[in-house]
Amino acid sequence: MDLLDGKKTSLDIQKELSEKVKSIVKNGLKPPHLAAVLVGDDGASRTYVNAKVKACERVGFKSTLHHLSSDVSESELLKIVNQLNADDSVDGFIVQLPLPNHIDDHKITLAISPNKDVDGFHPENVGKMTLGLPTFLPATPNGVMELLKRYNIPTEGKNTVVIGRSSIVGTPMSILMSRKTNPGNSTVTLAHSRTQNLEEICMKADILIVAIGIPEFVTSNMVKPNAVVIDVGIHRIEDASRKNGFRLIGDVNFSEVSSKCSYITPVPGGVGPMTIASLLMNTYIASSERN
Amino acid sequence: MDLLDGKKTSLDIQKELSEKVKSIVKNGLKPPHLAAVLVGDDGASRTYVNAKVKACERVGFKSTLHHLSSDVSESELLKIVNQLNADDSVDGFIVQLPLPNHIDDHKITLAISPNKDVDGFHPENVGKMTLGLPTFLPATPNGVMELLKRYNIPTEGKNTVVIGRSSIVGTPMSILMSRKTNPGNSTVTLAHSRTQNLEEICMKADILIVAIGIPEFVTSNMVKPNAVVIDVGIHRIEDASRKNGFRLIGDVNFSEVSSKCSYITPVPGGVGPMTIASLLMNTYIASSERN
Repeated sequence: MDLLDGKKTSLDIQKELSEKVKSIVKNGLKPPHLAAVLVGDDGASRTYVNAKVKACERVGFKSTLHHLSSDVSESELLKIVNQLNADDSVDGFIVQLPLPNHIDDHKITLAISPNKDVDGFHPENVGKMTLGLPTFLPATPNGVMELLKRYNIPTEGKNTVVIGRSSIVGTPMSILMSRKTNPGNSTVTLAHSRTQNLEEICMKADILIVAIGIPEFVTSNMVKPNAVVIDVGIHRIEDASRKNGFRLIGDVNFSEVSSKCSYITPVPGGVGPMTIASLLMNTYIASSERN
Repeated sequence: MDLLDGKKTSLDIQKELSEKVKSIVKNGLKPPHLAAVLVGDDGASRTYVNAKVKACERVGFKSTLHHLSSDVSESELLKIVNQLNADDSVDGFIVQLPLPNHIDDHKITLAISPNKDVDGFHPENVGKMTLGLPTFLPATPNGVMELLKRYNIPTEGKNTVVIGRSSIVGTPMSILMSRKTNPGNSTVTLAHSRTQNLEEICMKADILIVAIGIPEFVTSNMVKPNAVVIDVGIHRIEDASRKNGFRLIGDVNFSEVSSKCSYITPVPGGVGPMTIASLLMNTYIASSERN
């Protein structure tokens, strides 16, 4: 078994971007600029946004954090979105989801200009992805594609099973893997909560992508020998033996499955860091298109 | 074996729409208005557009046909699209594809206002479909969904295999069948030209949807006993025994497969008429949203 090392790959990508930024700046152009909007004080959201901002700094991008209080009104937030749409100094921006209950996530996502939507969440960008047109691809699925690419994992004609059909991971993942691209060109089955013969379906998978959000859901009886296993899940569970009192696990039972498969993404250090790399790549593209 | 009679179902839907239009007009409102743009003199395109216009007339919709010569420039066509976008008397419109080589199909599709795009081809509408948001669904896949619904075909938890990944049929079909809806909630496998073990995959299908564009491609060895078979293909082949010299066949070998499956769509009279019904339903929705 080999690890698909997302942490290392993400750092490789960041290094490449950092070189590109240096050469941009040398040529007298402005570095890419990502703005991030964070509403409220949810711990996980803060952690994610901070990681994104730090990654920007590491590669020499400019970043701006707009931290709004949790009681900001929908119309105030829309106003900020429109300001960022209009601000020529901003190449791309994200509004960290989920938003507080009094704000409609979809309304905000729709308000972001598609050509600054580096999260790839706007319906126009999702549609372009579905139609195979160039666009900002959603960060997590695109990060998985990049990982498969950099490890030269053959995907053409392979059976790929995606477990979970969320809008931001499972569904776009299934679309990207079945497009006429490399990586891609897989025969994809999208499994979900209503799937009846899941074990049997998973046993056919040459590539198994798990994004169901249930800790250690996938066990070795669901994995074909030598399969490639991508674990998108991340869960924090209590662990008294650790200094900080918890550890992170994925949607795959790593200790069972890792001995059976050919490649597997660890948690942490697998898909997570690739999501950030993917956001940086999108921001770089946004900036190139505007320069 | 029972036939999924698209012709009859389409007429049922047209009758229902016609009743609704009568009541709208009785209430002093304008009937729905579909405009169609046809470029050039391709026989198949003319036939399709004429069928759409006639169906409009049958249900009491207003329809307008803009027939442009094949040498119309891209910018002239864009001008007409923009006029239709701005014309308040038009609820929805379509530009019949494919367009002549000197015009970029994607550019025209992108220019159509998403809220008048009753073909459901604009990336924003495709994206909304992918995200499970309300929108105009693409006519052919939506017609298939409507047929499954009206015949009460159980789809939840079933294995659905879609053969063919085109942007206008196979890909959206796979997305619609896997969404959390009824019909829908299927475990969908999207097969295509690079799929290696197609026969084996098809043999697992409770519902087999064929949109590969190859005459009589699916034979009985690819069909599970009692499967539901949807044939999206339509091909005109020479037949000296017929008065008009040809007959229409689908992507499925009907004579072989029909004896093995539980339900099948005939060709002609299956999916084709449902595509038109679906376009009328979209136009009706467009009109209701504007009234």
